[in-house]
Amino acid sequence: MQNKIVLGIDFGSTAVRVLTLELESGKVLHSVEHAYEKGVNGVFTSDSDSLLARQSATDYINSMKMALKKSELENKKAGIAMSSVTGIGVDATGSTPLPVTKNMKPLSSLDQFKDNLNAYSWMWKDHTSHKEADKITKTITKIRPLYLTKIGGAYSSEWFWAKILHCRNIDKEVFDTAFTWLELSDFIPAVLAGITDANEVKRNICAAGHKGLYNDEWGGFPDAKFIEALHPDLIKILKTLPKKTYSIEYNSGKLSKEWAEEFGMPEGIPIAMGILDAHAGAVGSGIKDGSLVKIIGTSTCDLVLGDLDKSNSNIEGVASVATESVLPNYFGIESGQSAVGDILDWYIKNILKNNRSHKDLTEEAESIKVGASGLIALDWNNGNRSILSDPMLSGLIIGQSLQTKDFEIYRALIESTAFGARVIIEDMERQGVVINDIVNCGGITHKNPLFMQIYADVINKPMKIAAIDETVALGSALMGAYAAYSKEGKTITYNELQDKSCTVTEKVYHPISENVKVYHKLYNIYKKLHDAFGIEGSKIELYPVMKDLIKIKNG
Amino acid sequence: MQNKIVLGIDFGSTAVRVLTLELESGKVLHSVEHAYEKGVNGVFTSDSDSLLARQSATDYINSMKMALKKSELENKKAGIAMSSVTGIGVDATGSTPLPVTKNMKPLSSLDQFKDNLNAYSWMWKDHTSHKEADKITKTITKIRPLYLTKIGGAYSSEWFWAKILHCRNIDKEVFDTAFTWLELSDFIPAVLAGITDANEVKRNICAAGHKGLYNDEWGGFPDAKFIEALHPDLIKILKTLPKKTYSIEYNSGKLSKEWAEEFGMPEGIPIAMGILDAHAGAVGSGIKDGSLVKIIGTSTCDLVLGDLDKSNSNIEGVASVATESVLPNYFGIESGQSAVGDILDWYIKNILKNNRSHKDLTEEAESIKVGASGLIALDWNNGNRSILSDPMLSGLIIGQSLQTKDFEIYRALIESTAFGARVIIEDMERQGVVINDIVNCGGITHKNPLFMQIYADVINKPMKIAAIDETVALGSALMGAYAAYSKEGKTITYNELQDKSCTVTEKVYHPISENVKVYHKLYNIYKKLHDAFGIEGSKIELYPVMKDLIKIKNG
Repeated sequence: MQNKIVLGIDFGSTAVRVLTLELESGKVLHSVEHAYEKGVNGVFTSDSDSLLARQSATDYINSMKMALKKSELENKKAGIAMSSVTGIGVDATGSTPLPVTKNMKPLSSLDQFKDNLNAYSWMWKDHTSHKEADKITKTITKIRPLYLTKIGGAYSSEWFWAKILHCRNIDKEVFDTAFTWLELSDFIPAVLAGITDANEVKRNICAAGHKGLYNDEWGGFPDAKFIEALHPDLIKILKTLPKKTYSIEYNSGKLSKEWAEEFGMPEGIPIAMGILDAHAGAVGSGIKDGSLVKIIGTSTCDLVLGDLDKSNSNIEGVASVATESVLPNYFGIESGQSAVGDILDWYIKNILKNNRSHKDLTEEAESIKVGASGLIALDWNNGNRSILSDPMLSGLIIGQSLQTKDFEIYRALIESTAFGARVIIEDMERQGVVINDIVNCGGITHKNPLFMQIYADVINKPMKIAAIDETVALGSALMGAYAAYSKEGKTITYNELQDKSCTVTEKVYHPISENVKVYHKLYNIYKKLHDAFGIEGSKIELYPVMKDLIKIKNG
Repeated sequence: MQNKIVLGIDFGSTAVRVLTLELESGKVLHSVEHAYEKGVNGVFTSDSDSLLARQSATDYINSMKMALKKSELENKKAGIAMSSVTGIGVDATGSTPLPVTKNMKPLSSLDQFKDNLNAYSWMWKDHTSHKEADKITKTITKIRPLYLTKIGGAYSSEWFWAKILHCRNIDKEVFDTAFTWLELSDFIPAVLAGITDANEVKRNICAAGHKGLYNDEWGGFPDAKFIEALHPDLIKILKTLPKKTYSIEYNSGKLSKEWAEEFGMPEGIPIAMGILDAHAGAVGSGIKDGSLVKIIGTSTCDLVLGDLDKSNSNIEGVASVATESVLPNYFGIESGQSAVGDILDWYIKNILKNNRSHKDLTEEAESIKVGASGLIALDWNNGNRSILSDPMLSGLIIGQSLQTKDFEIYRALIESTAFGARVIIEDMERQGVVINDIVNCGGITHKNPLFMQIYADVINKPMKIAAIDETVALGSALMGAYAAYSKEGKTITYNELQDKSCTVTEKVYHPISENVKVYHKLYNIYKKLHDAFGIEGSKIELYPVMKDLIKIKNG
C-alpha cells in the first residue's frame, strides 16, 4: 500500500505552485510551479493608470491545471499515484477579490466583460482604490473607531471594501452584475469543491479578518449602517457575506467528482479552508507562540501569534490583527514593509540599468566595515506599511560624498530595510508582544548572507532561516494534512505537523557585538529621520545627522 | 608693422593655458594649453591621505614653457612674431602656496626635498589642514572677530595660513627651511620677472585678501599677536610678508632677459600683478558693477563687485570679501559652491560606472516636466562653501519611488546645484548686494542647455553665457593689455577693455514662467532641508516634505 500524500496549492503573484507532502513522515516530496499565462507575468496592467493590477480567473484555473499535471508527472516518476492524495490545502494572495455571479461564474468569463479589467480579479497590489481607502478610513474614524484598533490605524487601498467601492464608483455595470465578490483564497477552494451557488462558499477568517473588517468583537463583518455610510449600493454585497468565517481548523469543502477524475484523485477528499499566502508561509515556517516569521520577498510580511486568552489584540502600528487568521486559538498579528527586495531590484534595474548584479554589489558591500559608507537611507520607496501605515512617503538617502560608491548605496539600502524591520519589532515588543525567536523565509534569506547578517546585527537577535524556499506551499500542504487527519478522526495539532515538516537551516546568523554597537548608533539616526519625515507635527533637530554619520564613518 | 599682442597665462588645476589677444582690437586670436606632466593629471596624491593634493613647481615652469612654445607656433602660423608681445597677465589657482628659499628656489627643487610632498605646492583643494583651519577660526572668533566679517564666518582648510600651520605641525624640516611661502599667482610672475630675492616679490591683493587674511581695515596681513596665538613659529613667515599688496592696476615686474630671449619676446615688457583664476575669469567674463559672474566647473565660484565707497564690505555667508581683488575701486565678493560638475561626474563615474553619459542623461532628463521626478536633493556631497561654510555636510536625496529613473536623479542633482546657487544670490541680495545681470562661464554652460535653463528657471533671472570657454585666460590677457597700455602712458579702464573683448552668446536663457512657479515650490522645500540639516539648533517640521513632493509630482 502506498504512503498517503497531501497537496499544498499556492497561488502567488505570478505563478501557481503545487507541493506534495508525505502525510505520515511529513516529508516534502517535491514541488512544481506553472507561471500564469495571461498579461505580463500574469498581471494585466494599464498604460493610463500605473496603480492598476488585475488577473484572470480563467488563467488561475488553467494554470492550476497545468501545475497539477506537472505534479502528477513528478509523482508518477516517484511511483506515487494521485489516488494517494488524502487532503488539499490552498493559499492565495490577497486581498485579491473577484466579482462572481450567483452561480459562481467569474464575471471576467462572461462574454460581455471579457475585455473589461474591472470584471477581473483585483490583485492585492492594485492601488487604484486609494481614494476609497481614505474615505473608508475617515468613515471608520468617525463612526466605528473600534475598527481602527485591528487595522493599524488606516484602511488600505489594497483591501476588499476599498476595491469593491472603487468598482461601484467607476464601473456600475460590473458592480451591478456581480452577485458577490470572493477573495481568491475562497474562490479556488470553492472551484475545487465544485460549488455552484455563491451563497454556499465558506469564507476564510484570514482574508476576512485582515482585509475585510471581519471581527468577532463587532459581530463579524461590518454592520449595515457602516456599509451604507460608505455607499448605499454596497449593502447588496454585505448581504451576501456570511455571519461566520473559518480558520484552517475547518474544511472549505470536498473535492468534486470532476476535479477528482481529471487528476485521478479520490473524490470527496477534504479541502482545507483557504488562507492568505503570507499566513500559509508562517505556518510552513513553523510559526509558534513567541516566534516571529518574516516572509521576505519583494515586500516583507511579518507574522506573530498572540494568545487569544491573554493578549491584547489591539496593537497599534501594524497592518492588522485578526482572530485565528494563522493558527487556531491565536490572534494573527500581521505587519510588514511595503518594499524590501523591490528596493534592491529598483536600484539595480532602474538606476544601475542592470550593469551590476546583486552578487557583485553584495560582495563589494561585504568588504566595508559597518558604518564606513557614511550613508543612511529610509526604506520608503513604496511608502511605509508598518508602523506608519502611510503610502504617501518616499525614499531618502543621506551622507553621499564625492567618494561614495555604488555598492555602498546598495548596502545602505539593505540596512534601511533592516532598520525598518527593527522599528516594527520594537513597536510590537513595546506593546507586550513576546518575540523569542525569528524565522526568516524567502529566496533572499538563502541567497544573501550579508543581508541576513545585517538583519542579525541591526535587530540584535539571532536570525534563523526556514530550510526550504517553498514555505508558503508547505503551509498549504500542512493544512491539507490537518484536514486529512481530521477526516480520519485523528487528533493532531498544527504544532505537531510543523515539528515534522518545518526545519531551519543549520546556519543561524548571530549578532556580532561590534557591529551591533555601530548599528545601534545608526538606528538612532534612522529613527530620528523616520519620526521627522513620518510623524505629523514632529520637530526634530536634524543638524547633528550629517555630522554623526561622518563621525561614525571615520570610526 | 605688426599688430601688438598680449598674453594671458592661466595656471589651472590640471594644465597651463596661454591665450593671445590682439591689443588694439581686443580680439582673441587663439589659445593653447599644456597639461601638467607630473603626478596624476598634474596632482600628487597620497594613498594614506585622501585629503592631500600637491603640485610640482618644476612641472609648472616646464609646462608653461611648453605652452609658450605652442603659442609661439600658433602665432607663427598666423604670421605674428613673439616680438609683438607687449604685456603679460598671469592667473593661478589658489590658495596654492609653495615654500621657497630666500633666493627664490622652490623647496621641491632642492635635492633634500625632491621626494617630500610637503615641500611641493599645496594645491587649493588640499584639505589636509582642516584641523588647523578650525584652530584659526577659533582663534579669530576669540581675539579677532572682525576678521570673520571678511571670510564668511570661517577660515578654510584650503587657505594660506592653515596650510603653513599644518606644515609647521607635521614637517618642521620643510617649515624651517622655507624662507617664506608664495601663492602660485605671485610665484609665476616673479619667475617671469627673474626675481631672485623673495623679499622683492610683490604680492597680489586678490590671493592675500581672499585667502591670507590681508585687509586694509586691520592694516594689511594679521598682526604678530594674532599669528603668535596660532603658533609662535609662524612669526618668521609673517615677517616676510609685505605691508602692501596690489590689485591688477599694478604691475608685478618686467619680463626678464632670460625669458624674453627664450621665446623671442621683448625684454622688459610689463607683467601685470597676479590674480586668482576665478577672479581672472570674472574679468574675462566682463564683470561690471551689478553683475554676478558664475564660473561653473567642478565647483562654482561666484563673483560680484561691491562699490568701495558705498558698499558694506561685511557680508555674511560668503567665502570672502577683499578690497580690489577683482577690479580696482571695487570690493571683490567671492562666494561659491564646493561641488557642481563634480556631483554630476560623481554620479556618472561612481554610481553609474560610466554606463551612461552626460549627454544621454541630459536628453532623457529634458523629457520630463519640472517637478515630475518627485525628487529633491541637497548639493552637499563636498560640503557647503556658501552660505554655510561647513565642510562637514553631505549629500541628500529624497522622493525616490520604485519607479524613479536614473535620469531623474541626474536632473535632481542639477536642480540641487541650482537651488544652492539661488540660496547664495538671495543671501547677497538680502544684504543689499545688487545683481542686475548674471554671466555664466565654464564648459558646462555651453554644453548643457538643460542645466542653464534649470538655472534660469530656479533663479528666475536671465542667464547669459560668456561667448568663449577661456574666460579665465582672457581675463589674464586683459590684465596684460592693461599693463601694456599703462606702459605706453595711455589711460584705459578695465571696463573699456572688457567691452572690446568680452561677449556673451546670442543664446540667453530666460526664465519660463510655468517652470519658475513649480521651482519656487521646490526651492521652498530645498530651503527647509537646507536649514534643517545645515543650521545648528534649527527644528523644522519636515513631515510635509514627502507629501509636498508627491503633490508636485502629480501636478
